[in-house]
This record gives sequence, structure tokens and C-alpha cells, in this order.
Amino acid sequence: MRIAVLGTGVVGRTLASALLSNGHEVRLGSRVAGNEAAVAWAEEIGGPASEGTFADAAGFGELVINATAGAASLQALEMAGAEQLAGKVLIDVANPLDASRGMPPTLTVCNDDSLGEQIQRALPDVRVVKTLNTVTAAVMVDPTLIEGPHTIFVAGDNVEAKAQARELLQELGWPAASILDLGDITAARGMEMYLALWLRLWGATGTAVLNVEVRRGDGPAA
Amino acid sequence: MRIAVLGTGVVGRTLASALLSNGHEVRLGSRVAGNEAAVAWAEEIGGPASEGTFADAAGFGELVINATAGAASLQALEMAGAEQLAGKVLIDVANPLDASRGMPPTLTVCNDDSLGEQIQRALPDVRVVKTLNTVTAAVMVDPTLIEGPHTIFVAGDNVEAKAQARELLQELGWPAASILDLGDITAARGMEMYLALWLRLWGATGTAVLNVEVRRGDGPAA
Repeated sequence: MRIAVLGTGVVGRTLASALLSNGHEVRLGSRVAGNEAAVAWAEEIGGPASEGTFADAAGFGELVINATAGAASLQALEMAGAEQLAGKVLIDVANPLDASRGMPPTLTVCNDDSLGEQIQRALPDVRVVKTLNTVTAAVMVDPTLIEGPHTIFVAGDNVEAKAQARELLQELGWPAASILDLGDITAARGMEMYLALWLRLWGATGTAVLNVEVRRGDGPAA
Repeated sequence: MRIAVLGTGVVGRTLASALLSNGHEVRLGSRVAGNEAAVAWAEEIGGPASEGTFADAAGFGELVINATAGAASLQALEMAGAEQLAGKVLIDVANPLDASRGMPPTLTVCNDDSLGEQIQRALPDVRVVKTLNTVTAAVMVDPTLIEGPHTIFVAGDNVEAKAQARELLQELGWPAASILDLGDITAARGMEMYLALWLRLWGATGTAVLNVEVRRGDGPAA
């Protein structure tokens, strides 16, 4: 499948490389074509790896992944262009973190809205699925870095789009039983607000290679 | 130990009953003495169970638990009185949920502040520990309702106060290895913002008897 990965940071390059390993053709998109990190990545990988502008990548991809910095995602998607994105599934893995006011970062949107919803509203012809934003890049593409079962969330308004996201997650190594559908795109609020806890878990455990397993009771009280 | 539980809702009564079972003397505090739920509770339990105003309870307790509705907690603690609370450990289990604008509830404070911090600022002579707000009342006092290990968080500025909270958690059945210290009281932001995710987990799993286990990687990438 032809996949566009918007964003040339660690998350974008890690996802792009993993998708290539799984046999997909991947184009990495950035603000301007010839982005140094993107070119180096495409040259190193070779073959079905390419790079271009956000619009180049969005036009190329049958499926698009938003791996840009959350605070810049809406602008990046505007540059990608509604026409290039129309009718496609957009997997949004970004977090609207704002470190400009110091550490710890705050969220640029939360509580009664989310980046996932903002993207869905800005692009009504796109089927947005929020997922993978609750783990660090290395874990996104290799959940076995953490022993035992642990949970990855998906949210979105379109059932088929979520099924497609789920397939991609399974290709990346996420067992079907570990994928938890939280419902429509408003669930992105909880998934993004969790970042405030995640940052503290990172501090407390000393590693970003961490995740949570959701456990439910099975007794009568449940 | 003499413990004040502020708040006569399900959380307050559940905690109060469990603490009594563990041999503590408990006074349930509410807006006015003679609160119907509190009187019924005290009569049913008998013995070292009593009820009174927030101030009565706060004066009685060597340790105080805030189990009032989060949106009303600051006012409840003002009624309890800074003098009655001074020098004590205050365990804050409340969530600043606001359902007045419809479902799902939003938070009355989040992102760059939290209820835990607001309480600590309002009561500088009190040692606030945030804990237990990430699980439903039944799980607070009986973590075995959920099979296998799962995590409970603590946060607060005072190390001794957190040690005291940890002891109380262990009395309630939380294994020492499941108690994760997230640092100072600003970690209450993440613990409270997690509620937005928790509400969706409740919906997705079909039960409030749920919790997360924090897992970290042990490999070289960690």
C-alpha cells in the first residue's frame, strides 16, 4: 500500500521505516521538499522510500499518517491540502504538546476539545483515526519492547477506517487483543490528556519505553 | 488512628467503612451536621463511627481525607477550616469533574493546574497527598476486585505525608509494589486529566471496576 507519513521527526521516520519493512511504499512529507532529515532517510532506505512536500506525500498516499508536531499539525494538514486528503484514512498519532511555556509541556487543546477532533472538523472528507499517541516511537513499531500485554487505543467516527488502522497496528506487532476501541473521535480528548500522566510516568519509571495495560474486574461487582 | 472523611457520597462512605474495618475511628463530615446519609451510615456501623460538620470532622481527625465532589472541594475545605486542618496530612481523592455542561463531564481545572495543587495552595500548612482518584470507590478499598497487578499513584510535596498515605493504601490492600510515586503535587494534573481517558475506558470495557497497570520495558532501549 502507498502510505504518506507527514512529519520527519523521530516519530515520522520510525513509523516510515517500519512500514517500509512491512512491504509498503512510503513517502515522507515535510514543509519543503528536500528536507535534510527526509532526504537522508530516503537515501539510506532506498527502494520504495521517497520524500517530498506535505502535498506531494498526501497526494501519493492511499493512507496518510499525521506524525507532525501536534502544535503544528493543523497547518501541516492545510499545506497537505484537503483535495489530496479527501476520502482517505488519516491516522493521527500527534500530541498537541506545547513546551514553549517551559516544562512540563502543557496541551494546546484539551478538556472540551482535542487535536483529533480539530483535524476531523478541518477535514470533514477525511476519516480520522486517533491511535499510537500514547506510546513513544520505539514502542509504536515494536510493542514487544515491553514484556507482557499492554494496551493501545483507537478512536474515530468511521468504523471501516478504524478497522484499517487496526490492521496496520497488527502489522506493527500489536496483538488484536491489545487494541482497545474507545469509540468516536471525541475519545481523542482522553487519549491526548493522558499525556500529562504519561510524562510523569516517564519521570517516575525512568524510561519512555512504558505503557499501560487496561485491566478490568471479572467478579460480580464488575 | 482518628480519621476524618469529608464527603458523604459513595466514595466517602466506602472509604470510611473500610477504614473502620481496619480499626480506625472515623468521623464523616458534611456541609451540615445530621446529614441523612451520614447519620444512617454512623447508625448502621455503630462503635467508633460518627458524623458531623466538615469542621467537626476536620477537628476530630489526625488525618483527613477529602472525598467531596471535586467541584465543591475548595469550599468544603474552607468550611472545614484551616485551623482544624493545620499540620495534618490531607489525602485528596477527589476529581474536579463538571457534568453541568452535559456528558461527558469536563474538568473544572486542568492542563496548567489541578485540584490537588489548588488545595495545597489554599492550605499551605497542610500536607496534601493526591491518590486513589484514578479508581472507582469499590476498587479503592478492594484492589483484588481486579485480577493481577495494577497501579495506584501518589503525588505530593511532603515525603513523610506520602509515606503515611502509602501505609494507608497498604492497609486497604494495595501491594507496596503497585504504589507508584509520581513526585510532587503538580503530578496531580496528570492524575486528574487521566479521568478523561478513564471515562472512555469505562465505556469501552463496560465496567467501572477497571484500572491500569504501568509496564516498563527492561531491554536496552529502555
